[in-house]
Amino acid sequence: MIIVLKPNASSEVVEELLGAIEQRGLKPLHMPGTERVVLGALGDERMLHDLNLESHPQVESVKQILAPYKLVSREIHPHDTIVRIGNAAIGGNRFCLIAGPCAVETEERLRESAQAAKVAGATILRAGAFKPRTSPYAFQGHGEDGLKILAKVGQELGLPVVTEVMETADIPAVVEYADAMQIGARNMQNFSLLKAVGKAGKPVVLKRGMAAKVEDLLLAAEYILAEGNDQVVLCERGIRTFETATRNTLDLNAVPYIKQKTHLPIVVDPSHGTGIRDLVPPMALAGAAAGADGLMVEVHHDPAHAWSDGAQSLHPHQLKELSERLQGLLPVLGRSFA
Amino acid sequence: MIIVLKPNASSEVVEELLGAIEQRGLKPLHMPGTERVVLGALGDERMLHDLNLESHPQVESVKQILAPYKLVSREIHPHDTIVRIGNAAIGGNRFCLIAGPCAVETEERLRESAQAAKVAGATILRAGAFKPRTSPYAFQGHGEDGLKILAKVGQELGLPVVTEVMETADIPAVVEYADAMQIGARNMQNFSLLKAVGKAGKPVVLKRGMAAKVEDLLLAAEYILAEGNDQVVLCERGIRTFETATRNTLDLNAVPYIKQKTHLPIVVDPSHGTGIRDLVPPMALAGAAAGADGLMVEVHHDPAHAWSDGAQSLHPHQLKELSERLQGLLPVLGRSFA
Amino acid sequence: MIIVLKPNASSEVVEELLGAIEQRGLKPLHMPGTERVVLGALGDERMLHDLNLESHPQVESVKQILAPYKLVSREIHPHDTIVRIGNAAIGGNRFCLIAGPCAVETEERLRESAQAAKVAGATILRAGAFKPRTSPYAFQGHGEDGLKILAKVGQELGLPVVTEVMETADIPAVVEYADAMQIGARNMQNFSLLKAVGKAGKPVVLKRGMAAKVEDLLLAAEYILAEGNDQVVLCERGIRTFETATRNTLDLNAVPYIKQKTHLPIVVDPSHGTGIRDLVPPMALAGAAAGADGLMVEVHHDPAHAWSDGAQSLHPHQLKELSERLQGLLPVLGRSFA
Amino acid sequence: MIIVLKPNASSEVVEELLGAIEQRGLKPLHMPGTERVVLGALGDERMLHDLNLESHPQVESVKQILAPYKLVSREIHPHDTIVRIGNAAIGGNRFCLIAGPCAVETEERLRESAQAAKVAGATILRAGAFKPRTSPYAFQGHGEDGLKILAKVGQELGLPVVTEVMETADIPAVVEYADAMQIGARNMQNFSLLKAVGKAGKPVVLKRGMAAKVEDLLLAAEYILAEGNDQVVLCERGIRTFETATRNTLDLNAVPYIKQKTHLPIVVDPSHGTGIRDLVPPMALAGAAAGADGLMVEVHHDPAHAWSDGAQSLHPHQLKELSERLQGLLPVLGRSFA
Repeated sequence: MIIVLKPNASSEVVEELLGAIEQRGLKPLHMPGTERVVLGALGDERMLHDLNLESHPQVESVKQILAPYKLVSREIHPHDTIVRIGNAAIGGNRFCLIAGPCAVETEERLRESAQAAKVAGATILRAGAFKPRTSPYAFQGHGEDGLKILAKVGQELGLPVVTEVMETADIPAVVEYADAMQIGARNMQNFSLLKAVGKAGKPVVLKRGMAAKVEDLLLAAEYILAEGNDQVVLCERGIRTFETATRNTLDLNAVPYIKQKTHLPIVVDPSHGTGIRDLVPPMALAGAAAGADGLMVEVHHDPAHAWSDGAQSLHPHQLKELSERLQGLLPVLGRSFA
Repeated sequence: MIIVLKPNASSEVVEELLGAIEQRGLKPLHMPGTERVVLGALGDERMLHDLNLESHPQVESVKQILAPYKLVSREIHPHDTIVRIGNAAIGGNRFCLIAGPCAVETEERLRESAQAAKVAGATILRAGAFKPRTSPYAFQGHGEDGLKILAKVGQELGLPVVTEVMETADIPAVVEYADAMQIGARNMQNFSLLKAVGKAGKPVVLKRGMAAKVEDLLLAAEYILAEGNDQVVLCERGIRTFETATRNTLDLNAVPYIKQKTHLPIVVDPSHGTGIRDLVPPMALAGAAAGADGLMVEVHHDPAHAWSDGAQSLHPHQLKELSERLQGLLPVLGRSFA
Repeated sequence: MIIVLKPNASSEVVEELLGAIEQRGLKPLHMPGTERVVLGALGDERMLHDLNLESHPQVESVKQILAPYKLVSREIHPHDTIVRIGNAAIGGNRFCLIAGPCAVETEERLRESAQAAKVAGATILRAGAFKPRTSPYAFQGHGEDGLKILAKVGQELGLPVVTEVMETADIPAVVEYADAMQIGARNMQNFSLLKAVGKAGKPVVLKRGMAAKVEDLLLAAEYILAEGNDQVVLCERGIRTFETATRNTLDLNAVPYIKQKTHLPIVVDPSHGTGIRDLVPPMALAGAAAGADGLMVEVHHDPAHAWSDGAQSLHPHQLKELSERLQGLLPVLGRSFA
Repeated sequence: MIIVLKPNASSEVVEELLGAIEQRGLKPLHMPGTERVVLGALGDERMLHDLNLESHPQVESVKQILAPYKLVSREIHPHDTIVRIGNAAIGGNRFCLIAGPCAVETEERLRESAQAAKVAGATILRAGAFKPRTSPYAFQGHGEDGLKILAKVGQELGLPVVTEVMETADIPAVVEYADAMQIGARNMQNFSLLKAVGKAGKPVVLKRGMAAKVEDLLLAAEYILAEGNDQVVLCERGIRTFETATRNTLDLNAVPYIKQKTHLPIVVDPSHGTGIRDLVPPMALAGAAAGADGLMVEVHHDPAHAWSDGAQSLHPHQLKELSERLQGLLPVLGRSFA
């Protein structure tokens, strides 16, 4: 850690800080300059957390040298983690398609949409039973009844299922009926929930928050791994920016950046990332080209009458075509379609 | 609601949509133009939610005419709501100072910081027992033990207390020990939690999320009011932008805008809004001048050794001075210091 | 155009506005609702500009139905425009690689970097002679001397050249020595410059501004076309967001969105879009997969000693490898490498 | 400067960099840690610019210790600069009101609006003759004819005038007719223009760009001071964020932050900062409370018929009332109304 002191910092403060650094087992360094005094601390920077150096009245700024996360870091764990969801896998050289409707509407409707996902080559089925909605007057999901329908349709088609948990209280039911738990963008920093899914011992798909930096996403994943669960799939689904032409700004830069920093797999959600049906296929291909380990795509057998997210749901034939294009593209990228 | 159709929309679709609008009890309008057909729907737009017009393949765009929220709207409820927290009140002409340390650290330390708040004229004490932290390695709060200390110190000083709830499971304890529940920025769209605090029947301080538009904040409040709890204080605490000089960008525009749109009171948190101690007093004054109903400010008896947020916590004498300046400023603004 | 009036709008105002709409040759519509009066105006909305309806004290909001741009719109001009820069072309089914160093440094150094571009299959050479730099203490470019070097090296290698114009006064020299003029992100809304390049009659590469919505970019292009110059290539080079891991956030959503809205070609600049060398190849591939008509990439024979943008410049072998991967990828996308 | 090397950095690179630092007259420091090697360079960091350390393949990150600007810095020039525009002054304890319509429309109309400004206590008149407009189809200003009208009306009322320069070619005319040149937000990083106004020797009002960090604004001002012109007034006018309720997000945090960092005065423009007439007065007061040296406000004698920016222009009586409230507020803030 590098600590830049204010121009007027006293020599007493220099002594005090160097002593505190040494006391915590790090090697202190003193660099007196003409305009600022700079201090260094070599070793495990996490030991300095309780010093709260940013708060010190004579400290101008602090620069961390090491990443603030540890278990998710590729430096410590260089090999790709492969996350297994039912009989499917995410990570490594195979590319995974997760597809399904936004929400469980009725059993018949889910079955139709799920068949479309299966036909297109999806190996994991997605659909929400607990739905986070901006307005309290919008459809909120069927809850546990929806989970049962989801589990039934998944089993019929031989597809493992992933579905959202909105709070700790949802976890037991989701663990019973689903193969993986999804944390939505709005809950990415619901730390109580992160700890709880970390303990629940099922795979987690963790979506990036709308205002979350990549580092925040990795720290959110660190919460889950710190509870002993390393079966975490990250998901880039767009961030909120000033651009209003699309629902979100899909930040594909994050894909190769994250692949450098962590061993966890990352999938791209071009449905929420664009919010516009016709932009989903090109951005799905772009996500694959950027190096994602898979896609999470909304498909609906009848988008015009979907109960939610219809504007961004693919028609079955669009998902099929996308899948065929992916099968052409992936070998060029050194990957195979799972 | 105004519905703009795509250039190629068929007359069958026009008939279908007009029929659907009429069926839901709204008055349909047909406006055929040279380049686009435009449809209108006059009446309660919420009845059209399940049509999901945005998803229709022949719909280009949709414009809502009425606000999507209802109970929080000043149109329906023109008079200011005054929220009572213990013996204090927020809203109306009196200006309320909520102050205290970021977290409950120890009983002695809380007492010292709380006294500083009281001396400066704060009428509500704030401090966190459940702490949302970006990193799992940072201090996470004392939980229920912290709540007990907070309640004890609040009673000693005759100050009602507000403290954060991080998940539904925290509510019973917070309701027992505190006078108001705070929803943090990261949980503003934790809809399960919003519904639960709506049912818990204690006042709520709802902080704006880092990526939340004002409309999202009002819809989040609508969740709470929809459960029968109208004792909600909104809090502007800064949004996330590209500017890195300050921790967040305090959006004071939101204050007069929100006062126009809703009857609920709004306070400003210049501590999180800036992240820099010396910017807190001027931005606190700016918040008051913009028309806020109060402030929520972090103060610590010894910021250099605070366990969290020390860099943005005022020294006791700074809060005292700020309070004195507010007492000069508020009468000019037509308000009095509570 | 749809005009929503405030709840208290008077019938006199309704009459006044309907009259004004009719007077300008549009068809007025009157839609009295229970909570708001809505007016419509069918026809060429640009005729209403001088009414400044947004400013009217009894107008709540205005919704345009037609895009505010016209000449760049695909509705009016459905076929792809192909822009010819020297013997190269951008647009249509062929994919174009524009490459070169950030700046003209010396003739020898430019030659080495330009050869790397040529070897990798670039058909247009880029390099700056006038350099916009955030700091006045950074290298500002060689100006006209740089242009001469650029022209010389381009001719030697048979590559047309594109280079930035920073102000109207630069245009004559750039027109003399270069095959296309680039407008940088910081000048995207320098409207005087846009008009001047519109009149200069050479192709223009127009980079998206850091805070520019896609609509702003299209309106900036409209300025150029309105002067009679339709040889405009748009360039997505990243926008400024809260994410600091990368220099900018490359908004690839903009690529398929723009292809829908306009007939002009669009290229992607993954060098500025990421700011990090190792992210350039995957994001270049992603740009191609998203549907871009080409790439603009920085390459330097010795990035570690580049005078600017070294951190985001590819090594020659990296550009070569990228080019080979593109040649595998493009046929799958229905395109060929130019 | 602190230079963090990549984990695998070789000892040869360490030697090379330490040598290069020493050669440029700075004191090199070597801090070998367990996970990273960190180097330091104490002295004038600007001497290291040409090393382009960020580009070095074995450098992970670089942290500057000193601000990248110099002439604008309060460290070097601790006393407030007072900028004189005609017989008015900005900076120090007096608070300055700059007011006027968005654009020069006709002489009669300008006179009416200017009188409203004068009556309210404005000491500087603003109005645009060269107008930057997002659309080429919007009113573009009267150019030099507008300048003549502006000069005439200003003289009649005894008010110095400030007006925008859109490019270098506009400068001679603006210098002839106006007392100060304004650089608009879209031109804040038009570096050619910055240099040219630096040489023109008249005061400059420099507006913050929509995507500009405070540091970018200060570096833009540095361009002007580097040409020998220190008569620069900064202007906060809102940045572009995801919030769409207001035209921009007025970043008042920037006001006290900038007052710490630079000796130059700063004014706030609540008209562009909000885009909504009724939000202008509260945000003007908030700007004053945050510590601004003045305001720049749009006023129009008939906003409903203004040719541009009518929605954000105050009515004359509103400016008068605002001025009266400011006169009550400023003494409490230790300032007087100029």
